[in-house]
Amino acid sequence: MDGDWKGLDAVAIAQAIRHHQTTATEIVQATLDRIEQENPSRNCFTTITRQSAQTEAQAIDRHIEQGNPLGILTGVPFAAKNLFDIAGITTLAGAKINADNPPAKKDATAIARLKQAGGVLVGALNMDEYAYGFVTENSHYGVTPNPHDPSRTAGGSSGASAAAVASGLTPLALGSDTNGSVRVPAALCGVYGLKPTYGRLSRAGTVLLSDSLDQIGIFARSVRDLATVMDLLQGEDITDPVSTRHPPEPCLPQLNLGIQDVRVAIADGYFAQGAEPEALRAVEKIADILNTSKRVTIPESDRAKAAAYLITATEGASQHLAALKSRPQDFDPATRDRFFAGALMPSQWYHQAQKFRSWYRQQLRRLFQQFDIILAPTTPCVAPKSGEKTITIAGETVEVRPHLGRFTQPISFVGLPVLSVPIYGIANLPLGVQIITSPYNEALLLRLAKVLEKEGVINQ
Amino acid sequence: MDGDWKGLDAVAIAQAIRHHQTTATEIVQATLDRIEQENPSRNCFTTITRQSAQTEAQAIDRHIEQGNPLGILTGVPFAAKNLFDIAGITTLAGAKINADNPPAKKDATAIARLKQAGGVLVGALNMDEYAYGFVTENSHYGVTPNPHDPSRTAGGSSGASAAAVASGLTPLALGSDTNGSVRVPAALCGVYGLKPTYGRLSRAGTVLLSDSLDQIGIFARSVRDLATVMDLLQGEDITDPVSTRHPPEPCLPQLNLGIQDVRVAIADGYFAQGAEPEALRAVEKIADILNTSKRVTIPESDRAKAAAYLITATEGASQHLAALKSRPQDFDPATRDRFFAGALMPSQWYHQAQKFRSWYRQQLRRLFQQFDIILAPTTPCVAPKSGEKTITIAGETVEVRPHLGRFTQPISFVGLPVLSVPIYGIANLPLGVQIITSPYNEALLLRLAKVLEKEGVINQ
Repeated sequence: MDGDWKGLDAVAIAQAIRHHQTTATEIVQATLDRIEQENPSRNCFTTITRQSAQTEAQAIDRHIEQGNPLGILTGVPFAAKNLFDIAGITTLAGAKINADNPPAKKDATAIARLKQAGGVLVGALNMDEYAYGFVTENSHYGVTPNPHDPSRTAGGSSGASAAAVASGLTPLALGSDTNGSVRVPAALCGVYGLKPTYGRLSRAGTVLLSDSLDQIGIFARSVRDLATVMDLLQGEDITDPVSTRHPPEPCLPQLNLGIQDVRVAIADGYFAQGAEPEALRAVEKIADILNTSKRVTIPESDRAKAAAYLITATEGASQHLAALKSRPQDFDPATRDRFFAGALMPSQWYHQAQKFRSWYRQQLRRLFQQFDIILAPTTPCVAPKSGEKTITIAGETVEVRPHLGRFTQPISFVGLPVLSVPIYGIANLPLGVQIITSPYNEALLLRLAKVLEKEGVINQ
Repeated sequence: MDGDWKGLDAVAIAQAIRHHQTTATEIVQATLDRIEQENPSRNCFTTITRQSAQTEAQAIDRHIEQGNPLGILTGVPFAAKNLFDIAGITTLAGAKINADNPPAKKDATAIARLKQAGGVLVGALNMDEYAYGFVTENSHYGVTPNPHDPSRTAGGSSGASAAAVASGLTPLALGSDTNGSVRVPAALCGVYGLKPTYGRLSRAGTVLLSDSLDQIGIFARSVRDLATVMDLLQGEDITDPVSTRHPPEPCLPQLNLGIQDVRVAIADGYFAQGAEPEALRAVEKIADILNTSKRVTIPESDRAKAAAYLITATEGASQHLAALKSRPQDFDPATRDRFFAGALMPSQWYHQAQKFRSWYRQQLRRLFQQFDIILAPTTPCVAPKSGEKTITIAGETVEVRPHLGRFTQPISFVGLPVLSVPIYGIANLPLGVQIITSPYNEALLLRLAKVLEKEGVINQ
């Protein structure tokens, strides 16, 4: 990872700029140059915001010259999945149907908050159409390959967010996660991916897939970067009706508190099946470092996955019903059929899925009285080959797309915060392990990830 | 109203018993005798719990003899819609399908709490099958006629609860309200009907119609009785997952605080249309007493009614799906078709209805920043003739059943607390006016009803 900013993380880049070791303009220019050079093969960016990024970087440098106080992300380049509104640019959400829409009038709340802290947006990132997929093989905007092996998928739907961070194009990226769309690509590309508690971060100015599941998330290459961005993004947003009034609780100051007395368990049963041995070994390795061999069974997780599927299809179709009726031919074939299924599904299924969800939430609440953290694989395997419909996992041939979300779907189903930590050296490609905790306990996830980061398990 | 307890309200009966002017046994025996005598024509009770009522009354009298402290409902007879579990009796919920079920093992929370306060349950009351109707014309258990004119409907679905109180068979009755099932029969029978805030009173041990709408409610003939029962029933119930943790706030001590500075408005637009002139005059009369002529428009209430319909059909069908599949012939024809429609409805409709609900809730929240109380008719007309499918209202011929809920459905749709106050002398039969307020503000409803009660508008 030898980008022009030399593999530094976001916090370090900002420090270097503030300490006059470099300038925002230099960093941003080098980043833009590299993106323009590499993007034809990496296919991460659908839009590069060269001009506004340069202007903002220059403004930041002037601020520094004038000795003005600057934010924690001063001059740090970042990018966002193209379902975040960026003022002046059409929000694609991976869809051809959106290409002719007028440009967004203002930035999504998350983007605005990162800019306010000094971040410099360098562009919008590819994704599965309408965030409905796990592979970032978009029929309109192309495939985003895995940076570790271009013949393989980057995961999805925030595949280009993960790939941009993994390949060093940007130190930070924003994505969104409905059933695993942050965690799956984070794991397959080998970076950190944080999906906070449902409702904790504002979704204002983003295109939704599924109302009751979607949460925006963060990709980074260090734990302190994750904590920094989490702290910038948390706090109520009155323009987002779902945004909870949970009082902000900064994570960064707690990062080095350690994890004494934290009760960690490994999810067994469903979460130990349907996976390649290396995916399970990754979990064991993390468990070893955390010195635990305790097991916990999350009941009925197969049903949770099925229920999450039904809810996504219904709410997704509801979101895009007008276009499904008027322009079905313009959908990505990979999403269209599931949207149709969602549009035609009996309301019973949706309602029963929601009822089951209450029950499942109760079960998890109870488990979190016994444990603080649950570990599970993020994906059942390393990145599959791009374009392949099926894959053999644990001796069984299964469909790639739905199976990639096997372990992530049942967790986001009830809105829990999850951090996928990357783990190298178990297989020929990176894997991820989900660190799961109870609602609003992101600070604990980050403390635990910090311990793992120090142990070096995550090093590439 | 010259029952054997001489038209006293519940609080007065309990006082008379505690002050040795009569005994619980005398009151309960007289009540049971009268029920047995009149029920063949009134068809309120589907079960009379003679033996347990007598036993409990005797136990209460022994307590009094021993000078033991006694609850506020000491010796007061009450009855409940037959969807409340009563230990030892099969819970019918108006359905033939339930008739062979084993008896309930324990009382519903609401019944247990009233018994704990000294109330004596005298039986279970007729209703529309599965609470899905506005007329209490049950094909299995018969029609409950209106006490003021037996050729007319008592309203529904808690029709027998209203009729039992209106005819003086019991001073108190419990019912449930999904779209107006407490308020409509309260209005048509001329008694008070309180539907509290969604989630405020425990539904544990009741058969649900629609998960996200149902709320149990209270019928009484005095405001202090309503307040007394409200106070006994409020407070979290851990056996009801919907029961909110709103801290109990006793209403009875606030009852005589008056309504100075309370901002009252009359709902116009939708709520002033599709009604007979007398129904609107009833609202005007209450507004005159409260000295207001302010108007407020609740937007899109026609959509709210439609959305409430879709949600009820979906959730109702979900509740009874197994029986709909296996025993469709045993349903009441009046409910079956709507349940089928609910079972086959696309999930889009349900989801869109839920989304609209969030929007509508916001609108009402805003209106309640300007006003504390909104007035609206309870029903668009006095009790229609039993068995009639259509009725002419404001010159238009409409279907009786859906139209009776025209004014109640849009209010319960977003869980607001409502009190239907009876009003006599406007038409040849009683009418009701809905007093509506913001969530958890039942105490204000009761204070306002107390003022109206003093004014005598409610007198028969």
